[in-house]
Amino acid sequence: MSIVEHAIKGWQSIPFSKVAIDDAFWRPRLAVLKNVTMKVCLSHCEETGRIANFAVAGGLLEGKFEGIYYNDSDVYKVLEGAAYSLMTDRDPVLEAEIDRIIDLIAAAQEADGYLCTYYTLEAPESKWTDMEKHEMYNGGHLIEAAVAYYEATGKRKLLEVACRLADHYDSVFGPDKRHWAEGHEEIELALVKLYRATDEERYWKLALWLLEERGHGHGVGKIWDTPDWGPAYCQDDVPVRDIKEVKGHAVRAMYLYTAMADVVHASGDTAYIDALHRVWAHTVERNMYVTGGIGPSVHNEGFTHDYDLPNESAYCETCAAIAMVFWNHRMNLLFGDGKYADIVEREMYNGALSGISLSGDKFFYVNPLASKGEHHRVDWFGTSCCPTNLARFLPSIGQYAYAATDDGVAVNQYMNSETVLEVGCGSNVKLKQTTAYPWDGRIELTVVPDRTDKFTIKLRLPGWCRGYKISAQGEQVSGLEGRPENGYLVLNRHWVPGDSIVLELDMPVEVVRSRPEVEANLGRFALQRGPVVYCIEQTDNPGLSFDGFALSAHEPLLVEHRADLLGGVTILHGKEADGDGRPCVFIPYYAWDNREAGFMQVWVREGEDRHLYKY
Amino acid sequence: MSIVEHAIKGWQSIPFSKVAIDDAFWRPRLAVLKNVTMKVCLSHCEETGRIANFAVAGGLLEGKFEGIYYNDSDVYKVLEGAAYSLMTDRDPVLEAEIDRIIDLIAAAQEADGYLCTYYTLEAPESKWTDMEKHEMYNGGHLIEAAVAYYEATGKRKLLEVACRLADHYDSVFGPDKRHWAEGHEEIELALVKLYRATDEERYWKLALWLLEERGHGHGVGKIWDTPDWGPAYCQDDVPVRDIKEVKGHAVRAMYLYTAMADVVHASGDTAYIDALHRVWAHTVERNMYVTGGIGPSVHNEGFTHDYDLPNESAYCETCAAIAMVFWNHRMNLLFGDGKYADIVEREMYNGALSGISLSGDKFFYVNPLASKGEHHRVDWFGTSCCPTNLARFLPSIGQYAYAATDDGVAVNQYMNSETVLEVGCGSNVKLKQTTAYPWDGRIELTVVPDRTDKFTIKLRLPGWCRGYKISAQGEQVSGLEGRPENGYLVLNRHWVPGDSIVLELDMPVEVVRSRPEVEANLGRFALQRGPVVYCIEQTDNPGLSFDGFALSAHEPLLVEHRADLLGGVTILHGKEADGDGRPCVFIPYYAWDNREAGFMQVWVREGEDRHLYKY
Repeated sequence: MSIVEHAIKGWQSIPFSKVAIDDAFWRPRLAVLKNVTMKVCLSHCEETGRIANFAVAGGLLEGKFEGIYYNDSDVYKVLEGAAYSLMTDRDPVLEAEIDRIIDLIAAAQEADGYLCTYYTLEAPESKWTDMEKHEMYNGGHLIEAAVAYYEATGKRKLLEVACRLADHYDSVFGPDKRHWAEGHEEIELALVKLYRATDEERYWKLALWLLEERGHGHGVGKIWDTPDWGPAYCQDDVPVRDIKEVKGHAVRAMYLYTAMADVVHASGDTAYIDALHRVWAHTVERNMYVTGGIGPSVHNEGFTHDYDLPNESAYCETCAAIAMVFWNHRMNLLFGDGKYADIVEREMYNGALSGISLSGDKFFYVNPLASKGEHHRVDWFGTSCCPTNLARFLPSIGQYAYAATDDGVAVNQYMNSETVLEVGCGSNVKLKQTTAYPWDGRIELTVVPDRTDKFTIKLRLPGWCRGYKISAQGEQVSGLEGRPENGYLVLNRHWVPGDSIVLELDMPVEVVRSRPEVEANLGRFALQRGPVVYCIEQTDNPGLSFDGFALSAHEPLLVEHRADLLGGVTILHGKEADGDGRPCVFIPYYAWDNREAGFMQVWVREGEDRHLYKY
Repeated sequence: MSIVEHAIKGWQSIPFSKVAIDDAFWRPRLAVLKNVTMKVCLSHCEETGRIANFAVAGGLLEGKFEGIYYNDSDVYKVLEGAAYSLMTDRDPVLEAEIDRIIDLIAAAQEADGYLCTYYTLEAPESKWTDMEKHEMYNGGHLIEAAVAYYEATGKRKLLEVACRLADHYDSVFGPDKRHWAEGHEEIELALVKLYRATDEERYWKLALWLLEERGHGHGVGKIWDTPDWGPAYCQDDVPVRDIKEVKGHAVRAMYLYTAMADVVHASGDTAYIDALHRVWAHTVERNMYVTGGIGPSVHNEGFTHDYDLPNESAYCETCAAIAMVFWNHRMNLLFGDGKYADIVEREMYNGALSGISLSGDKFFYVNPLASKGEHHRVDWFGTSCCPTNLARFLPSIGQYAYAATDDGVAVNQYMNSETVLEVGCGSNVKLKQTTAYPWDGRIELTVVPDRTDKFTIKLRLPGWCRGYKISAQGEQVSGLEGRPENGYLVLNRHWVPGDSIVLELDMPVEVVRSRPEVEANLGRFALQRGPVVYCIEQTDNPGLSFDGFALSAHEPLLVEHRADLLGGVTILHGKEADGDGRPCVFIPYYAWDNREAGFMQVWVREGEDRHLYKY
């Protein structure tokens, strides 16, 4: 594909609040999220002074600033997650608690709209002097929380705080005003959200201005002067439209690209499109793990050089995987290509989901692809961006399932769910999905338009799928209609209420091999089945030791669904290629470290084949 | 695996007459075989003088020998096939016709037991002077026909002819008698069959002696003196126990190895085992096409050098593919390893089956893997070994489905069928298989022992299968019992009448790549789904030209079952990787050249991927 591809599709997101999830995989996770994760996050925010900082800054409480300058953002992210929970599941107790916190936040806002408790309490004279200090990053998360809470409850208080803050930014920064290249991107995508909630175009225009500020030497702060890192660390090395390669801090880079896609979607301006295509290919084809993890290095929490994908020392921050979802979801909406939704799926079932324990109260910041047994999820972190990112990512998972196209609907993610949306010509259509995904590749879709109407239903054909069958309206689909376009099967038909579509995706166990440039994986393979990447964990394999075994890539694997294990997982039984041929068991990568500690590996050594014929 | 593996399992074949096939794939083929193929073969044998030669030799008809010196064998092979047909489906008209021919054969036998109409009529003074003249080859086929007809009808006349002939051989050749290294092997495996039918040990001992004669310079005839070919052409270059590599004429080599396996099975002598393992690996790993075809060269109808597997000029004689079935079936019985039954399957659905048209009356001698459009099945050949080999191979297909092990049964091939056999401890057990194989990987087995009993059911896990599920007696099988041993899942249980086993083989479309040593396939891939290898044929793809297109190995394929096409086939819809992305259709290789003439290719050029990410 040429990287110069200017066609903007401009699909619209279907908010998760319009998607009722009744899915054996996701439903229990959403319940744990609301009942456990949300509570522990709020409680940790309380215990660590993150909430009190607002009360102190607002003069409602005696005290001083506690923690790190970006701690406000964690509270905002929990609020955003709480809003998502409330949207599908009203809860007066939780809502009252959020309202209480919102009052504290409002109190902490200064008269001119400024809001950042660290500066208000610790260094009011130093505002806007160090672009690495996350002032606008905090503000961005406030805006995202405010939009979510407004959409969930209709309450405007936090939204007004957010607008005052954004207007404050607008009054200080912009053409003929001060320069600013925020060290940690986030504000840009948040401003586009605020524009969508308020219809005020100045917000996306401010986002565009902030994007355009980058790469012109405006960056000021310690980071810019650190030789090892420099401006590339925070994507301030080149103007964004000239970006060729993914660089620097992984989460920052992903938030930047997310905002670039958002601004193209909002403005219709194609100036960033080439850069987006270039950097997407560079990220995904050379700098992404099979789990969807990105950013191999602990040093800069980010990228190093192409194909540097070590397994045991893989950093792969949970936030970076979630940020890949944000970016790829936007790319999917913008370009209408299933390859972006493929990445969303890869993160959903692997790199992002591994960040949280099945119990919902323990978290990975770092997601390696191999461990000798010392790496474990913990309750909370000093820098606790990952738990709070999970708290807002998971409850909104439904938004990735569907999108509104210009002439119908795209089904992007497969989960037992129902949605109602308006299709091109004004009909409402109810879609009901029935599936045992990700463990089974059969998906049944019931189509109920309020009147018989012609529109297009697109079904994503996942990138991992090599063979499939599809029937619609009771008959096999064949020929051109059955062939994918840009990763979708496209059914443009007259739909009658009650019509069904059955998509059967072959879901075999796949042996995944790495490019030879990835040294860490030479002589190794990984296993994937459907969207789920597998790993081998010591507790299931007491006879094996870290890297002390090898498997044959041609040995068949017994596929067993175990409802009683790890919240319900399909596991794979294999056996060693060499030695005594001892049995070995693979579990989904996302589910590791939920039982006894021990080694874990995704990429396993390839041993001799028992027999192998070739042609 | 060490090539020194001396464990003989000695499984017993379950004759096809004990296997009732009620299978959507095989049943119609067996009907065509009986109603069309058998009739056209008999009629061609009549028209070409092959049958008259016996009458003339027996003095029942005036005339002279017609055709080629090995033409007797075609009549015998048709008789063998007819016997198989009669075994499952008595037919007085056919039986009367066979009896008539048997009378002619018996008349043609000379007083001392000698039987070969060419020599009797053309050169009686030259008997046993040229080992290339197929005297014993003809005799071997007579013996196979005689044993089959005796087992089908209980009639002894042809069997007695066969015994007299074998006894004649035994009187002329052997220790302290004349040497003989028959140019075209066949007699050796036939003598073991005769031993099994008569219990006369001298027959397998004569087979052993004939095997031992080879490689000691006893060969006499034009072939031995032809520099290009020499003794290797007919496997007379080294003593058989020293064989390291497959060489020479493909059918001859396969018949030799078949006999070696037979003799080991009959005698329990392990002397040939290492040679069998060596030559099997050398054949299958370096000299076999993906279709199971062997013998690339028209020059010697056989092997050339390792990895010489050209596609368009592939010879791949139909008889050689059938002979691979014979050999691998014996290897499976001898060593109890599923990898041999894998090859049987590969030939059944590809290299052997392609030899016959769907109409049953047109045949390939040569089975290339690519054609520009000039290669077509024809009615008959001057050397018509292939049609007559199909005539005896297909009606006995059921014999490959099951085998009796020392403590139960092995299920080797999957087809809708029923069998009754005795298991280790004396019970009779009925097995009923229900499946839509080879189009679907679900196989249900109902087990009905005449009393509850403990025995072992082995289910072959095909080599192409990477993932599978299995349940037995209503529960998922897991752990060690669910892991294959030597290519089989082994269920050693107490079985109650009515127990069921459900084996679900993942059957995705597989991209098959060649070893890099195979120059013809560099930059190409083939498609296989389950045991079926696919090809692309012009009639489905009018926009494409021979080798003028490329496909992506990562483009998904629509799998469509078409009951109305080519006798019922599952086809694959893909699209070009480059150019206009034109759609293309793949059909099973065995089904090509049954419609309008045009190009055909198994190995297609690999084009650019639309998108491809790696880790």
